[in-house]
Amino acid sequence: MSGFSEESLHRIFQSSFAGRKGILGPGSDCAQLTPPKGRRLLQTVDQVVGGVHLDVHATPTAYARKLLRRTLSDLAAVGATPWTVSWTLALPTDWTASQIRTLAKAFLKEADAFQVPVIGGDCSQSSQVVLTCTAMGLDNGPVPGRAGAKPGDVILVTGKLGASFTTGSHLLPEPRLREGKRLVQNFKPHAMMDLSDGLAKDLPRILRASAVGAEIELTALPLDRSLSQNQAGWESAVGEGEDYELLVILNPSQSKRAMEDRTLRKVGIHAIGFVTEGSKLRWLENGRGKRLKAKGWEHHWS
Amino acid sequence: MSGFSEESLHRIFQSSFAGRKGILGPGSDCAQLTPPKGRRLLQTVDQVVGGVHLDVHATPTAYARKLLRRTLSDLAAVGATPWTVSWTLALPTDWTASQIRTLAKAFLKEADAFQVPVIGGDCSQSSQVVLTCTAMGLDNGPVPGRAGAKPGDVILVTGKLGASFTTGSHLLPEPRLREGKRLVQNFKPHAMMDLSDGLAKDLPRILRASAVGAEIELTALPLDRSLSQNQAGWESAVGEGEDYELLVILNPSQSKRAMEDRTLRKVGIHAIGFVTEGSKLRWLENGRGKRLKAKGWEHHWS
Repeated sequence: MSGFSEESLHRIFQSSFAGRKGILGPGSDCAQLTPPKGRRLLQTVDQVVGGVHLDVHATPTAYARKLLRRTLSDLAAVGATPWTVSWTLALPTDWTASQIRTLAKAFLKEADAFQVPVIGGDCSQSSQVVLTCTAMGLDNGPVPGRAGAKPGDVILVTGKLGASFTTGSHLLPEPRLREGKRLVQNFKPHAMMDLSDGLAKDLPRILRASAVGAEIELTALPLDRSLSQNQAGWESAVGEGEDYELLVILNPSQSKRAMEDRTLRKVGIHAIGFVTEGSKLRWLENGRGKRLKAKGWEHHWS
Repeated sequence: MSGFSEESLHRIFQSSFAGRKGILGPGSDCAQLTPPKGRRLLQTVDQVVGGVHLDVHATPTAYARKLLRRTLSDLAAVGATPWTVSWTLALPTDWTASQIRTLAKAFLKEADAFQVPVIGGDCSQSSQVVLTCTAMGLDNGPVPGRAGAKPGDVILVTGKLGASFTTGSHLLPEPRLREGKRLVQNFKPHAMMDLSDGLAKDLPRILRASAVGAEIELTALPLDRSLSQNQAGWESAVGEGEDYELLVILNPSQSKRAMEDRTLRKVGIHAIGFVTEGSKLRWLENGRGKRLKAKGWEHHWS
């Protein structure tokens, strides 16, 4: 039989949820979930749009991997362990059955790699690729929000920042799940989030929620190896976005301990500044004020 | 400030989750959910695409209402009570801030009407309207699937079927939440689902899952008042789709009781046929075999 229907997708995913305790997956109107006792659920949703988040000519596999990884990054941001994912596919009619199958299998394989079952989905026609993914995670301790930063706290980031587009690293983000869980279990973050729109856009979200300011020492930013410690390097690191590293606010003693933690050091953890009184975000170069143009990334409608 | 950003959306939704026990909503990377003890969660996801599920020129309010209602219909199909919804918006750049605000407020108002909080979302740019909604519900008893139909069981539907496009009823489906819950709590459905793609497409899903056949008496179909008991009326009733009525399989004694139930009779409940041995779906006109062309609705890719 030629052609590809939504039910073909169900068959691909039948294998994904079999044998998972407390989870009954696709093929019915709803997935059935029995949450483990005493755990809170963390839920997030994300999108990948062709021509916006990925080149319209990106491969089905690239779509699948970016979609899942950027969604799971939101769970990392609260230190949660992935429990379930579901997704939607809006695909142009010129996508072939073979492309859709490749997309579905890549998504399933990626989910398997993160040990999370795909419990449902919906497939529709459209003129443009629009994929969405909803993930649920299980908490690993108190869930850090964005409102707990206090003056004197240390601002840290994991990994490296910047050059996500020029190096292509935005295609295959690494959700910092292990590190997020470690931070929540051991270092009591006052606030935490993942850097998807760039430090210049994301840090102010914590500052507003916490009613505080911050000073960031640019020379302390862990830059991607393709960048240099100069204006262009810093602009990329704070403004380009799609880093998917963790931005963490810790009190000074927890910060010191975290920077000695072996798990965190494996991917890198760097103190880049301090929380201050007030509401301003100030960039510093060797302690002196520095103007940056970088604004971070944002959708805007007229 | 002109323009409209994703953060403007968060503000609109702040009011939606305040004061709900066990639910912390948008503004962070994840919503926090504490499931009520002893209840299973039912999760479903649905899409509304401009030009596919709705006219591209549909009003923002029409988009919002259809999106939420067709998603909740999946919860009705398993007799669940809505607990949370989240959504994604992919919107063309020519949508104005005012239109987006109208869409968001209409979605929120509709969710309020169904007493379900909007716990999160994501907004992106696109060339076409693609909206998705993920809903979670709480079970109200054993969750009916599609695999439990047995020869001799009665096939029933709620409400009226057909003419959903000509009458415009597809714009404002009525999720049969009260009826779904009632059926699950009192009448032990062997199988249940909602009719979104039409009886001709949806009933075979139950038949395949249950490895049974069925006979449907066309003259027993509860037709929309704009239709007549003739070939054209039956084709519309079984093939047009978007009815969002419940399709229920009950054993004969439960069926008799259900048809006398006051809650169910309020919207109408009608026995339309029987489950048989084998795997065939046969249409009957006054007991004699009848050929129909209606196939139900399906997305298809090359």
